[in-house]
Amino acid sequence: MDMETVKEYLENSANIDGDELPLRFFERLIMHGLRVDLIETSRVICTFKVSPRLLNGSNYLHGGVTATLVDLVGSAAVYTVGAPFTGVSVEINVSYMDAAYADEEIEIEARALHVGKAVAVLSVEFRKKNTGKIIAQGRHTKHLSLPSKM
Amino acid sequence: MDMETVKEYLENSANIDGDELPLRFFERLIMHGLRVDLIETSRVICTFKVSPRLLNGSNYLHGGVTATLVDLVGSAAVYTVGAPFTGVSVEINVSYMDAAYADEEIEIEARALHVGKAVAVLSVEFRKKNTGKIIAQGRHTKHLSLPSKM
Amino acid sequence: MDMETVKEYLENSANIDGDELPLRFFERLIMHGLRVDLIETSRVICTFKVSPRLLNGSNYLHGGVTATLVDLVGSAAVYTVGAPFTGVSVEINVSYMDAAYADEEIEIEARALHVGKAVAVLSVEFRKKNTGKIIAQGRHTKHLSLPSKM
Amino acid sequence: MDMETVKEYLENSANIDGDELPLRFFERLIMHGLRVDLIETSRVICTFKVSPRLLNGSNYLHGGVTATLVDLVGSAAVYTVGAPFTGVSVEINVSYMDAAYADEEIEIEARALHVGKAVAVLSVEFRKKNTGKIIAQGRHTKHLSLPSKM
Repeated sequence: MDMETVKEYLENSANIDGDELPLRFFERLIMHGLRVDLIETSRVICTFKVSPRLLNGSNYLHGGVTATLVDLVGSAAVYTVGAPFTGVSVEINVSYMDAAYADEEIEIEARALHVGKAVAVLSVEFRKKNTGKIIAQGRHTKHLSLPSKM
Repeated sequence: MDMETVKEYLENSANIDGDELPLRFFERLIMHGLRVDLIETSRVICTFKVSPRLLNGSNYLHGGVTATLVDLVGSAAVYTVGAPFTGVSVEINVSYMDAAYADEEIEIEARALHVGKAVAVLSVEFRKKNTGKIIAQGRHTKHLSLPSKM
Repeated sequence: MDMETVKEYLENSANIDGDELPLRFFERLIMHGLRVDLIETSRVICTFKVSPRLLNGSNYLHGGVTATLVDLVGSAAVYTVGAPFTGVSVEINVSYMDAAYADEEIEIEARALHVGKAVAVLSVEFRKKNTGKIIAQGRHTKHLSLPSKM
Repeated sequence: MDMETVKEYLENSANIDGDELPLRFFERLIMHGLRVDLIETSRVICTFKVSPRLLNGSNYLHGGVTATLVDLVGSAAVYTVGAPFTGVSVEINVSYMDAAYADEEIEIEARALHVGKAVAVLSVEFRKKNTGKIIAQGRHTKHLSLPSKM
């Protein structure tokens, strides 16, 4: 692929009137369609319906959406153990195992593996609601302080 | 924090009229504001201006946006070595080191560490444009095939 | 710390008569003390006793040993789903949450999250045998081919 | 592969007289053969010769050795910025891209990406000495405190 095409690949998708969108619209775009099914100490389970606006160029759920949900649903699991705030992300990782298509329902389960004095570690798993097959699994490490203290 | 509050944290941000947004809007929302500065074999450099709509609840760049850019700019680096397509994400990881605030300019550099017959590994670094300080660094592993072959 | 001290930190621990040790001694050093408790499809559970020879400079289990066990016990989980060989490591990651001291017994549980045509993903968790507290959790991604095909 | 064979795969390599080996022998086994070439602020470069005792079952450098070197050489990079101690490992990840065979010389370069008040992030790259080809790249996140404070 020639360099001009790479440039177009990166820049062409940007033709939205984004400046009219409100503050923190990104997070709201993703969370729209999330429904909480269970919250207990160290565990959160949600249902998420894949919206067409969250697909990638190959028409399945964008890997960036999955990574963002590892961040957001994992952070909620920190709250379940009584922490007053969820801290700052230090590391997020995700393994992708299967594709999720438009209108599929996904179950997202976050588990708090460790919530200590300074560090919390969360595991977040994404499964197809109808078969239980794993779509992705991620881990999220947070530092329980302000960003300026990192 | 009580369970009802955790539930509100997860569900309340979802009150957008998202169903009116077009197909693959997520990717366009993020790519809006990305400008390609350099493309050469195995390397892509972009400038990215942090938009208020991409902030998190603490008013700095959302970690999910950073992870999505590891995906997208890393994928562009696969193209620079002549691969006909960029493959399927197997693993994405990101270390977060500093906050980027609204209207800050970020330099994003993607390097192809390895593009082989079946696997590509990309490194993506985010730096403050004015000081060079590293904001985040991620790695992206792709399988150079169709999702159904994974 | 001055540069000479950093150099000593790196080089001084190397005063063993290592050239007399047999081929692949490293793996045998770690596996010594591992006992398999359960093997079923997609799952392996082992008990591991922390030996003094595997401690780090702070006298708890060396993080490199944990990472090696993510590799080895994870690979065994690939076999349990009937794969004829366990493939080549593409990515290993580990989150460390607690220290394990000399003579402690650890339970190691490996789960095959995905074993597909080309890629396998394994999760490996380390828990204190007597309390169930999580010491570490890792993920191991393998490409099911020969290294020359990567 | 039947379950008995998986069990043998895991347990059979353990027939060493390991109890006779000294305290912290593991670290010394790996560091033997490491030579420091350059130490400057935020950067350490070493040469490492692959010993037959560090090979895996396929006769190339064991992935667990690479992960351990991400830990150890990365930790040395923390010292170069003047930190009084190197902290506790929070996360280690490694991408494997090529095999290194017995007696090959490897260059290992560790860079301190961030050394803050509470968190340090190090990048460690492994290259073939004669061609510069990347063998592996890892990242190491440390918490700059005692394990009991995590």
